[in-house]
Amino acid sequence: MPRFRTVRGMRDFLPKHAERMRYVEGLSRELAGLYGYEEVITPIVESYKLLAAKSGEEITQRMYAFKDLGGRKVALRPEFTASIARLVAGKLKNEPKPMRLFCLGSLYRYDEPQYGRFREFWQANYELIGSDKPEADAEILTLTNNLIERLGLRNCHLKIGHMGILRGMLNQENVEEESQNRIMQLLDKKQWDEALVAAKDCKVSERCTKTMKKLFEAKGKEPSRVLRRVKEEVREYGSAVVAVENLSDILELVRNGGVKFEMVIEAGFARGLEYYTGLIFEPYVPGLDIALGGGGRYDKLIELFGGEPTAAVGVAQGIDRFVLAMNKQGIPPRIRNEKRVVLIPISDELKAKAIELSSMLREAKISAEVEVMGRTVSRALEDADRKGATHIILVGSKELREDRVVLRDMKKREQRAVEIENICKELNEE
Amino acid sequence: MPRFRTVRGMRDFLPKHAERMRYVEGLSRELAGLYGYEEVITPIVESYKLLAAKSGEEITQRMYAFKDLGGRKVALRPEFTASIARLVAGKLKNEPKPMRLFCLGSLYRYDEPQYGRFREFWQANYELIGSDKPEADAEILTLTNNLIERLGLRNCHLKIGHMGILRGMLNQENVEEESQNRIMQLLDKKQWDEALVAAKDCKVSERCTKTMKKLFEAKGKEPSRVLRRVKEEVREYGSAVVAVENLSDILELVRNGGVKFEMVIEAGFARGLEYYTGLIFEPYVPGLDIALGGGGRYDKLIELFGGEPTAAVGVAQGIDRFVLAMNKQGIPPRIRNEKRVVLIPISDELKAKAIELSSMLREAKISAEVEVMGRTVSRALEDADRKGATHIILVGSKELREDRVVLRDMKKREQRAVEIENICKELNEE
Repeated sequence: MPRFRTVRGMRDFLPKHAERMRYVEGLSRELAGLYGYEEVITPIVESYKLLAAKSGEEITQRMYAFKDLGGRKVALRPEFTASIARLVAGKLKNEPKPMRLFCLGSLYRYDEPQYGRFREFWQANYELIGSDKPEADAEILTLTNNLIERLGLRNCHLKIGHMGILRGMLNQENVEEESQNRIMQLLDKKQWDEALVAAKDCKVSERCTKTMKKLFEAKGKEPSRVLRRVKEEVREYGSAVVAVENLSDILELVRNGGVKFEMVIEAGFARGLEYYTGLIFEPYVPGLDIALGGGGRYDKLIELFGGEPTAAVGVAQGIDRFVLAMNKQGIPPRIRNEKRVVLIPISDELKAKAIELSSMLREAKISAEVEVMGRTVSRALEDADRKGATHIILVGSKELREDRVVLRDMKKREQRAVEIENICKELNEE
Repeated sequence: MPRFRTVRGMRDFLPKHAERMRYVEGLSRELAGLYGYEEVITPIVESYKLLAAKSGEEITQRMYAFKDLGGRKVALRPEFTASIARLVAGKLKNEPKPMRLFCLGSLYRYDEPQYGRFREFWQANYELIGSDKPEADAEILTLTNNLIERLGLRNCHLKIGHMGILRGMLNQENVEEESQNRIMQLLDKKQWDEALVAAKDCKVSERCTKTMKKLFEAKGKEPSRVLRRVKEEVREYGSAVVAVENLSDILELVRNGGVKFEMVIEAGFARGLEYYTGLIFEPYVPGLDIALGGGGRYDKLIELFGGEPTAAVGVAQGIDRFVLAMNKQGIPPRIRNEKRVVLIPISDELKAKAIELSSMLREAKISAEVEVMGRTVSRALEDADRKGATHIILVGSKELREDRVVLRDMKKREQRAVEIENICKELNEE
């Protein structure tokens, strides 16, 4: 039979890489607990209709969609928010607000595989549901900053925009939602000129395209200065002005709340998902031109999914992208160096004793492996050394008669007989 | 838009249930570390050919199989072992043996949904690769016992068999592998009579069917007694005798190694997966007639996948089934009771201060939520109480002038002003 390979766009994570994935996952989950986000688990296979409802054409076309054996049209989730909205509109509809929900797992998009972009990827997702206040948006931004800090990533910045600015203008210009979505898709791909053409096709006023052009140029690291300028530009579009003020309020809370990361405002910034209504943002790290995650406010989504009108804001953190960023910056996961003990029975009749002793070590939270290859002591020792064992326990009948074993310290290259009842204490004291 | 639901056979896990899932996952992962199993992550989407190669017709027919947008025939993994065999035959082929690998995640089978059986389910998978020795089998059994003990499950037993007994007989009777597989599938479904008919169709001797019948009756809780009887029955089938002796060796090591769980031998026991060659087993808990997991030895699989001939033994533990068993036995997950603090700013201009203080608490590993609904203090207090907050911090301008906040203990119903620099210390000391 031929060698099999992973399907294009899918990855294996070997131990060192997998350890980093689990490290970022663990840290994300710990952060969820610290912020009061409760974890839910939703299926990877969802109905196609649910997933296609509001994620945007771009993503819908790239879903892993198929019919199950019962003829149901299903797909692998390309993002978490649709599933969360389904829960909030359904099983969780009577829960008091605010609701803070966390979920973590793999997602699927048939994108062209490239550096940092794969067809199976992982996200940690935080959703704050039920509040339309700027402090809710501020919490999601603060949490993002906190995750980045805890991972030890340096020089990150947040790219920040607000869907209400452009949508506010286009609404006032009577552009239909579908056309607006098309314009946003183009902006997401940074096709500014095409977006302007699309707007013109919708017969917007000349003032509108002029203002849009100005907005695309409105970028910068000093939020208050950029937002003052944007507010001036959109002054004739009432709801766009409200959006700018909302963004100012959010960013002021974030700054005064003690967050120090760099924020880059981009008034012409849009994201691929159609459901955003307010703040949108993406974290970046120098030298990686893909976003580490992304989030924003989506106040209309839950009612579209059959729930009560419910304000919501959330963020998806890209687990595998954070790992990539850590690797790029040479940051090791903070995993404590543990003892790794290998037990070698000197002869066959001592195998059971070695198994018994290994259980004792594990009870004391010490990692223990028993030699299972039936090799000679010297070959087993050699292998244990190569694999980084910190200690060897040689189980021999002579020592056992005195309730002892030989404990060998692989670093110091020393060995001595130790009473069995003292092994765990000795290992843990070192 | 209508309410959406989960696809048939798929589940949502709400916070209390999800917490238990993550608890069992965490414990499984911790155990992997203690036994020296290194984690790998393989994709959920694999090539159909890989997954169909050796899992058995029963499972192949129930796979979620489809063509991806590039026309590749793929499927959602119904089990982990094929992916692990792919790794061992490929990317890990030069790693020294023994190799201990752990993986954890969701799997997919289009079974009829019923109590404890769903179309999306979770497993923690341990594979010990490279050893054909009974101590390797013993390790997998010991590990299974250890997981069950650590979860606190009571009165579990292991159902144990050995594929070498029946396969040994059928080989000697010149029954082709495909026909053997069909017989095993019938045995897996406990269709003993049909299995005998299938054997007769293969023109086995009368002695063979007579012995098979006897084997199907050979069951019991005293391994040594049952195995003596089985050995006597199969005495004219050389490799079946070797299989019985192998099983005796394994179980003796397990017992003498200190494992105390009940072992029930069933000589006519088979499992749905075709690739097993030696020991097979499944853990059970009283009152649940579905296995909590399952495992065994599969010495031919890796070479079938293009690798060197490599002995291997492993086990898949059913995460969601263990949760079901814990719920049935009323066992709570051992999760420490943590402080949950809610910060309420008395007025709007203190929101940023509340955010800042919440970051300070989280730095000290205390879970903190900021009021984000803009509610009155009394309504926010009421909600925090209902949600089980242990402490409230009221951020008011009067106290802030003295660098203090009001800390309210929700259990004692007491409150007092506390210096900001002492809050974390006070909360952690309690």
